[in-house]
Amino acid sequence: MEPKKFRIIKPEIRILGIDDGRFVPHTEGEVIVVGVVFRGGCSLDGVMHTHVAIDGFDATEQLASMINSSPHCKQIRLIMLNGITLGGFNIVDIKKLNFDTKLPIIALTPEKPDLESVYKALINLPRAEERWKIVLSAGEIHEVVCLCKKIYMELVGISITDAEEIVKLTLKNSSLPEPLRVAHLIASGVSL
Amino acid sequence: MEPKKFRIIKPEIRILGIDDGRFVPHTEGEVIVVGVVFRGGCSLDGVMHTHVAIDGFDATEQLASMINSSPHCKQIRLIMLNGITLGGFNIVDIKKLNFDTKLPIIALTPEKPDLESVYKALINLPRAEERWKIVLSAGEIHEVVCLCKKIYMELVGISITDAEEIVKLTLKNSSLPEPLRVAHLIASGVSL
Repeated sequence: MEPKKFRIIKPEIRILGIDDGRFVPHTEGEVIVVGVVFRGGCSLDGVMHTHVAIDGFDATEQLASMINSSPHCKQIRLIMLNGITLGGFNIVDIKKLNFDTKLPIIALTPEKPDLESVYKALINLPRAEERWKIVLSAGEIHEVVCLCKKIYMELVGISITDAEEIVKLTLKNSSLPEPLRVAHLIASGVSL
Repeated sequence: MEPKKFRIIKPEIRILGIDDGRFVPHTEGEVIVVGVVFRGGCSLDGVMHTHVAIDGFDATEQLASMINSSPHCKQIRLIMLNGITLGGFNIVDIKKLNFDTKLPIIALTPEKPDLESVYKALINLPRAEERWKIVLSAGEIHEVVCLCKKIYMELVGISITDAEEIVKLTLKNSSLPEPLRVAHLIASGVSL
Protein backbone atom coordinates (compact mmCIF):
# COMPACT_ATOMS: atom_id res chain seq x y z
CA MET A 1 0.00 0.00 0.00
CA GLU A 2 1.31 3.47 -0.85
CA PRO A 3 2.06 5.58 2.22
CA LYS A 4 -0.64 8.05 3.04
CA LYS A 5 0.40 11.56 2.09
CA PHE A 6 -0.81 14.05 4.69
CA ARG A 7 -2.44 16.93 2.84
CA ILE A 8 -1.54 19.16 5.74
CA ILE A 9 -0.06 18.36 9.17
CA LYS A 10 -1.97 20.46 11.69
CA PRO A 11 -0.05 21.57 14.80
CA GLU A 12 -2.82 19.95 16.85
CA ILE A 13 -2.84 16.63 14.99
CA ARG A 14 -4.11 13.86 17.34
CA ILE A 15 -1.38 11.28 17.89
CA LEU A 16 -1.68 8.07 19.89
CA GLY A 17 1.56 7.34 21.77
CA ILE A 18 1.89 3.80 23.12
CA ASP A 19 4.24 2.24 25.68
CA ASP A 20 4.28 -0.68 28.10
CA GLY A 21 4.63 -0.64 31.87
CA ARG A 22 7.18 -2.32 34.11
CA PHE A 23 7.23 -6.10 34.42
CA VAL A 24 9.52 -8.86 35.59
CA PRO A 25 11.21 -10.24 32.44
CA HIS A 26 10.96 -13.92 31.53
CA THR A 27 7.96 -14.50 33.77
CA GLU A 28 4.47 -15.61 32.87
CA GLY A 29 1.77 -13.00 33.08
CA GLU A 30 0.73 -9.75 31.54
CA VAL A 31 1.93 -6.18 31.41
CA ILE A 32 -0.15 -3.03 31.12
CA VAL A 33 0.12 -1.10 27.84
CA VAL A 34 -0.95 2.54 27.89
CA GLY A 35 -2.08 4.67 24.96
CA VAL A 36 -2.15 8.46 25.27
CA VAL A 37 -3.98 10.71 22.86
CA PHE A 38 -1.87 13.82 22.37
CA ARG A 39 -2.75 17.01 20.57
CA GLY A 40 0.47 17.65 18.62
CA GLY A 41 3.25 18.03 21.17
CA CYS A 42 1.14 20.04 23.56
CA SER A 43 -1.76 18.64 25.40
CA LEU A 44 -3.01 15.30 26.72
CA ASP A 45 -6.54 14.60 25.46
CA GLY A 46 -7.16 11.06 26.63
CA VAL A 47 -5.76 7.84 28.04
CA MET A 48 -6.58 4.21 27.23
CA HIS A 49 -5.05 0.91 28.26
CA THR A 50 -4.87 -2.78 27.52
CA HIS A 51 -2.74 -5.74 28.63
CA VAL A 52 -0.41 -7.99 26.64
CA ALA A 53 1.25 -11.28 27.59
CA ILE A 54 4.93 -11.07 28.59
CA ASP A 55 6.91 -12.59 25.65
CA GLY A 56 3.55 -13.49 24.09
CA PHE A 57 1.98 -13.12 20.65
CA ASP A 58 -1.06 -10.93 21.28
CA ALA A 59 0.40 -7.38 21.07
CA THR A 60 -0.91 -6.57 17.57
CA GLU A 61 -4.38 -7.87 18.28
CA GLN A 62 -4.63 -6.18 21.70
CA LEU A 63 -3.50 -2.81 20.32
CA ALA A 64 -5.92 -2.96 17.38
CA SER A 65 -8.76 -3.82 19.72
CA MET A 66 -7.83 -1.07 22.23
CA ILE A 67 -7.64 1.55 19.46
CA ASN A 68 -10.72 0.53 17.47
CA SER A 69 -12.92 0.36 20.57
CA SER A 70 -11.75 3.71 21.98
CA PRO A 71 -14.03 6.77 21.93
CA HIS A 72 -10.98 8.69 20.62
CA CYS A 73 -10.57 6.40 17.61
CA LYS A 74 -12.04 8.76 15.01
CA GLN A 75 -9.84 11.68 16.11
CA ILE A 76 -6.54 9.78 15.99
CA ARG A 77 -4.48 10.39 12.84
CA LEU A 78 -1.30 8.47 13.67
CA ILE A 79 0.11 5.79 15.99
CA MET A 80 3.56 6.21 17.58
CA LEU A 81 5.26 3.19 19.11
CA ASN A 82 8.43 3.06 21.20
CA GLY A 83 10.07 0.39 19.01
CA ILE A 84 8.10 -2.65 17.92
CA THR A 85 8.21 -4.82 21.07
CA LEU A 86 5.97 -4.76 24.12
CA GLY A 87 6.23 -6.88 27.27
CA GLY A 88 9.63 -8.26 26.35
CA PHE A 89 9.35 -9.95 22.95
CA ASN A 90 5.66 -9.62 22.22
CA ILE A 91 6.35 -8.11 18.82
CA VAL A 92 3.94 -5.70 17.13
CA ASP A 93 3.28 -6.54 13.49
CA ILE A 94 3.12 -2.91 12.41
CA LYS A 95 1.91 -3.75 8.88
CA LYS A 96 -1.01 -5.72 10.31
CA LEU A 97 -1.72 -3.01 12.91
CA ASN A 98 -1.82 -0.44 10.11
CA PHE A 99 -4.23 -2.67 8.14
CA ASP A 100 -6.46 -3.32 11.17
CA THR A 101 -6.67 0.32 12.30
CA LYS A 102 -6.25 2.14 8.96
CA LEU A 103 -3.77 4.44 10.76
CA PRO A 104 -0.20 5.26 9.74
CA ILE A 105 2.46 4.11 12.20
CA ILE A 106 5.82 5.46 13.32
CA ALA A 107 7.81 2.96 15.43
CA LEU A 108 10.60 5.06 16.81
CA THR A 109 13.70 4.57 18.96
CA PRO A 110 16.38 7.03 20.06
CA GLU A 111 18.99 4.24 19.75
CA LYS A 112 19.71 2.31 16.56
CA PRO A 113 17.94 -1.07 16.79
CA ASP A 114 20.54 -3.84 17.03
CA LEU A 115 18.95 -6.61 14.97
CA GLU A 116 21.76 -9.08 15.68
CA SER A 117 21.15 -8.85 19.45
CA VAL A 118 17.41 -9.07 18.89
CA TYR A 119 17.88 -12.28 16.90
CA LYS A 120 20.16 -13.78 19.57
CA ALA A 121 17.58 -13.04 22.26
CA LEU A 122 14.70 -14.33 20.15
CA ILE A 123 16.15 -17.76 19.38
CA ASN A 124 15.80 -18.78 23.03
CA LEU A 125 12.05 -18.21 22.93
CA PRO A 126 9.31 -20.50 21.60
CA ARG A 127 8.19 -19.86 17.99
CA ALA A 128 11.41 -17.93 17.38
CA GLU A 129 11.18 -18.00 13.57
CA GLU A 130 7.67 -16.59 13.66
CA ARG A 131 8.84 -13.72 15.89
CA TRP A 132 11.85 -13.02 13.66
CA LYS A 133 9.61 -12.81 10.60
CA ILE A 134 7.50 -10.12 12.30
CA VAL A 135 10.66 -8.17 13.20
CA LEU A 136 11.85 -8.26 9.58
CA SER A 137 8.44 -7.43 8.15
CA ALA A 138 8.59 -4.01 9.89
CA GLY A 139 10.82 -3.00 6.98
CA GLU A 140 13.63 -0.54 6.59
CA ILE A 141 14.98 1.39 9.60
CA HIS A 142 15.31 5.06 8.67
CA GLU A 143 17.87 7.22 10.45
CA VAL A 144 16.86 10.87 10.61
CA VAL A 145 18.11 13.86 12.55
CA CYS A 146 15.41 15.92 14.27
CA LEU A 147 16.36 18.98 16.33
CA CYS A 148 19.98 17.76 16.52
CA LYS A 149 18.89 14.34 17.81
CA LYS A 150 19.36 11.09 15.89
CA ILE A 151 16.12 9.11 15.66
CA TYR A 152 15.49 5.66 14.16
CA MET A 153 12.10 4.97 12.63
CA GLU A 154 10.23 2.10 11.03
CA LEU A 155 7.26 3.42 9.07
CA VAL A 156 4.00 2.05 7.70
CA GLY A 157 1.52 4.11 5.71
CA ILE A 158 3.47 7.36 6.04
CA SER A 159 6.31 8.96 4.06
CA ILE A 160 9.68 9.74 5.66
CA THR A 161 9.14 13.46 5.09
CA ASP A 162 5.76 13.47 6.85
CA ALA A 163 7.08 11.29 9.68
CA GLU A 164 10.03 13.66 10.21
CA GLU A 165 7.73 16.67 10.31
CA ILE A 166 5.49 15.03 12.91
CA VAL A 167 8.45 13.97 15.06
CA LYS A 168 9.82 17.54 14.93
CA LEU A 169 6.41 18.89 15.94
CA THR A 170 6.29 16.65 19.01
CA LEU A 171 9.91 16.64 20.23
CA LYS A 172 10.57 18.86 23.22
CA ASN A 173 13.31 18.54 25.84
CA SER A 174 13.56 14.76 25.61
CA SER A 175 14.97 12.10 23.32
CA LEU A 176 11.36 10.94 22.77
CA PRO A 177 8.42 12.82 21.21
CA GLU A 178 5.91 13.97 23.85
CA PRO A 179 3.26 11.28 23.11
CA LEU A 180 5.86 8.55 23.75
CA ARG A 181 7.54 10.30 26.70
CA VAL A 182 4.19 10.72 28.45
CA ALA A 183 2.97 7.19 27.57
CA HIS A 184 6.19 5.89 29.14
CA LEU A 185 5.76 7.97 32.33
CA ILE A 186 2.16 6.83 32.77
CA ALA A 187 2.73 3.15 31.98
CA SER A 188 5.69 3.04 34.38
CA GLY A 189 3.91 5.06 37.04
CA VAL A 190 0.83 2.85 37.22
CA SER A 191 2.55 -0.54 36.98
CA LEU A 192 4.14 -2.79 39.63
CA MET B 1 -0.19 26.43 61.82
CA GLU B 2 0.24 29.65 59.85
CA PRO B 3 -0.09 29.12 56.08
CA LYS B 4 3.22 28.93 54.30
CA LYS B 5 3.89 32.14 52.39
CA PHE B 6 5.56 31.37 49.07
CA ARG B 7 8.52 33.72 48.70
CA ILE B 8 8.13 33.43 44.96
CA ILE B 9 5.90 31.21 42.81
CA LYS B 10 8.03 29.96 39.94
CA PRO B 11 6.24 29.29 36.64
CA GLU B 12 7.69 25.77 36.78
CA ILE B 13 6.67 25.02 40.38
CA ARG B 14 6.24 21.24 40.84
CA ILE B 15 2.63 20.43 41.72
CA LEU B 16 1.23 17.00 42.55
CA GLY B 17 -2.30 16.62 41.13
CA ILE B 18 -4.29 13.70 42.54
CA ASP B 19 -7.48 11.96 41.39
CA ASP B 20 -9.14 8.57 41.66
CA GLY B 21 -10.11 6.16 38.90
CA ARG B 22 -13.47 4.67 38.00
CA PHE B 23 -15.14 2.21 40.35
CA VAL B 24 -18.54 0.69 41.01
CA PRO B 25 -20.08 2.71 43.87
CA HIS B 26 -21.20 1.02 47.10
CA THR B 27 -19.15 -2.11 46.42
CA GLU B 28 -16.33 -3.58 48.45
CA GLY B 29 -12.87 -3.29 46.99
CA GLU B 30 -10.32 -0.70 46.04
CA VAL B 31 -9.90 2.04 43.48
CA ILE B 32 -6.69 3.27 41.92
CA VAL B 33 -5.56 6.79 42.86
CA VAL B 34 -3.12 8.50 40.53
CA GLY B 35 -0.71 11.32 41.36
CA VAL B 36 0.87 13.36 38.56
CA VAL B 37 3.86 15.61 39.05
CA PHE B 38 3.34 18.68 36.90
CA ARG B 39 5.75 21.48 36.15
CA GLY B 40 3.48 24.52 36.52
CA GLY B 41 0.70 24.16 33.96
CA CYS B 42 3.00 22.84 31.26
CA SER B 43 4.70 19.55 31.43
CA LEU B 44 4.20 16.13 33.02
CA ASP B 45 7.29 15.11 35.00
CA GLY B 46 6.18 11.92 36.71
CA VAL B 47 3.34 9.60 37.66
CA MET B 48 2.73 7.63 40.86
CA HIS B 49 -0.19 5.58 42.12
CA THR B 50 -1.74 3.92 45.12
CA HIS B 51 -5.06 2.28 45.99
CA VAL B 52 -7.72 3.24 48.51
CA ALA B 53 -10.72 1.30 49.80
CA ILE B 54 -14.11 2.25 48.30
CA ASP B 55 -15.99 4.18 51.05
CA GLY B 56 -13.08 3.32 53.36
CA PHE B 57 -10.94 5.24 55.84
CA ASP B 58 -7.43 4.88 54.43
CA ALA B 59 -7.23 7.76 51.90
CA THR B 60 -5.12 10.10 54.06
CA GLU B 61 -2.66 7.40 55.06
CA GLN B 62 -2.33 5.97 51.54
CA LEU B 63 -1.72 9.41 50.00
CA ALA B 64 0.90 10.34 52.60
CA SER B 65 2.68 7.05 52.06
CA MET B 66 2.55 7.38 48.23
CA ILE B 67 3.94 10.93 48.36
CA ASN B 68 6.62 10.40 51.01
CA SER B 69 7.98 7.28 49.32
CA SER B 70 8.05 8.82 45.82
CA PRO B 71 11.37 9.75 44.17
CA HIS B 72 9.67 13.06 43.26
CA CYS B 73 8.89 13.90 46.89
CA LYS B 74 11.62 16.51 47.37
CA GLN B 75 10.68 18.41 44.20
CA ILE B 76 6.97 18.70 45.01
CA ARG B 77 5.92 22.07 46.46
CA LEU B 78 2.14 21.65 46.61
CA ILE B 79 -0.64 19.05 46.55
CA MET B 80 -3.83 19.63 44.52
CA LEU B 81 -6.85 17.47 45.19
CA ASN B 82 -10.10 17.27 43.24
CA GLY B 83 -12.29 17.83 46.32
CA ILE B 84 -11.60 15.93 49.52
CA THR B 85 -13.14 12.52 48.76
CA LEU B 86 -11.66 9.55 46.95
CA GLY B 87 -13.29 6.21 46.13
CA GLY B 88 -16.75 7.41 47.12
CA PHE B 89 -16.62 8.61 50.73
CA ASN B 90 -13.05 7.79 51.68
CA ILE B 91 -12.44 11.32 52.92
CA VAL B 92 -9.00 12.92 52.90
CA ASP B 93 -8.13 14.64 56.18
CA ILE B 94 -6.29 17.49 54.50
CA LYS B 95 -4.95 18.91 57.78
CA LYS B 96 -3.40 15.55 58.63
CA LEU B 97 -2.09 15.11 55.06
CA ASN B 98 -0.46 18.53 55.31
CA PHE B 99 1.10 17.54 58.65
CA ASP B 100 2.32 14.15 57.35
CA THR B 101 3.81 15.49 54.10
CA LYS B 102 4.76 19.05 55.15
CA LEU B 103 3.19 20.21 51.88
CA PRO B 104 0.51 22.87 51.40
CA ILE B 105 -2.77 21.59 49.95
CA ILE B 106 -5.41 23.02 47.64
CA ALA B 107 -8.59 20.90 47.51
CA LEU B 108 -10.46 22.36 44.59
CA THR B 109 -13.81 21.87 42.85
CA PRO B 110 -15.38 23.70 39.91
CA GLU B 111 -18.81 23.32 41.58
CA LYS B 112 -19.70 24.63 45.03
CA PRO B 113 -19.56 21.70 47.49
CA ASP B 114 -23.09 20.96 48.74
CA LEU B 115 -22.44 20.03 52.37
CA GLU B 116 -26.08 19.21 53.06
CA SER B 117 -26.10 16.53 50.34
CA VAL B 118 -22.75 15.23 51.56
CA TYR B 119 -24.17 14.86 55.09
CA LYS B 120 -27.28 13.08 53.81
CA ALA B 121 -25.14 10.60 51.87
CA LEU B 122 -22.73 10.09 54.76
CA ILE B 123 -25.31 9.14 57.38
CA ASN B 124 -26.06 5.89 55.55
CA LEU B 125 -22.46 4.76 55.91
CA PRO B 126 -20.72 3.17 58.91
CA ARG B 127 -18.82 5.58 61.22
CA ALA B 128 -20.79 8.48 59.76
CA GLU B 129 -19.95 10.94 62.56
CA GLU B 130 -16.24 10.29 62.14
CA ARG B 131 -16.50 10.98 58.40
CA TRP B 132 -18.51 14.15 58.96
CA LYS B 133 -15.88 15.46 61.39
CA ILE B 134 -13.17 15.04 58.72
CA VAL B 135 -15.36 16.89 56.18
CA LEU B 136 -15.83 19.81 58.59
CA SER B 137 -12.18 19.89 59.64
CA ALA B 138 -11.20 20.82 56.06
CA GLY B 139 -12.28 24.32 57.03
CA GLU B 140 -13.69 27.23 55.10
CA ILE B 141 -14.64 26.90 51.44
CA HIS B 142 -13.24 29.88 49.52
CA GLU B 143 -14.95 31.01 46.32
CA VAL B 144 -12.56 32.69 43.90
CA VAL B 145 -12.78 33.67 40.25
CA CYS B 146 -9.82 32.62 38.12
CA LEU B 147 -9.76 33.44 34.38
CA CYS B 148 -13.52 34.08 34.46
CA LYS B 149 -14.19 30.68 36.09
CA LYS B 150 -15.62 30.24 39.57
CA ILE B 151 -13.52 27.87 41.65
CA TYR B 152 -14.12 26.56 45.19
CA MET B 153 -11.10 25.79 47.35
CA GLU B 154 -10.34 24.39 50.78
CA LEU B 155 -6.80 25.30 51.80
CA VAL B 156 -4.22 24.07 54.28
CA GLY B 157 -0.80 25.64 54.73
CA ILE B 158 -1.26 28.19 51.92
CA SER B 159 -2.79 31.67 51.73
CA ILE B 160 -5.75 32.43 49.46
CA THR B 161 -3.62 34.86 47.43
CA ASP B 162 -0.91 32.27 46.76
CA ALA B 163 -3.49 29.55 46.01
CA GLU B 164 -5.24 31.83 43.50
CA GLU B 165 -1.95 32.63 41.78
CA ILE B 166 -1.07 28.93 41.45
CA VAL B 167 -4.54 28.05 40.14
CA LYS B 168 -4.27 30.84 37.53
CA LEU B 169 -0.84 29.57 36.51
CA THR B 170 -2.19 26.05 35.88
CA LEU B 171 -5.64 26.72 34.39
CA LYS B 172 -5.84 26.27 30.63
CA ASN B 173 -8.88 25.42 28.53
CA SER B 174 -10.62 23.41 31.22
CA SER B 175 -12.58 23.94 34.41
CA LEU B 176 -9.74 22.14 36.23
CA PRO B 177 -6.07 23.11 36.58
CA GLU B 178 -3.80 20.96 34.38
CA PRO B 179 -2.43 18.75 37.21
CA LEU B 180 -5.99 17.75 38.15
CA ARG B 181 -7.29 17.49 34.57
CA VAL B 182 -4.43 15.15 33.64
CA ALA B 183 -4.63 13.13 36.90
CA HIS B 184 -8.33 12.60 36.11
CA LEU B 185 -7.65 11.50 32.50
CA ILE B 186 -4.97 9.04 33.59
CA ALA B 187 -6.86 7.58 36.57
CA SER B 188 -9.98 7.11 34.42
CA GLY B 189 -8.02 5.76 31.47
CA VAL B 190 -6.21 3.03 33.41
CA SER B 191 -9.11 1.88 35.57
CA LEU B 192 -11.91 -0.63 34.93
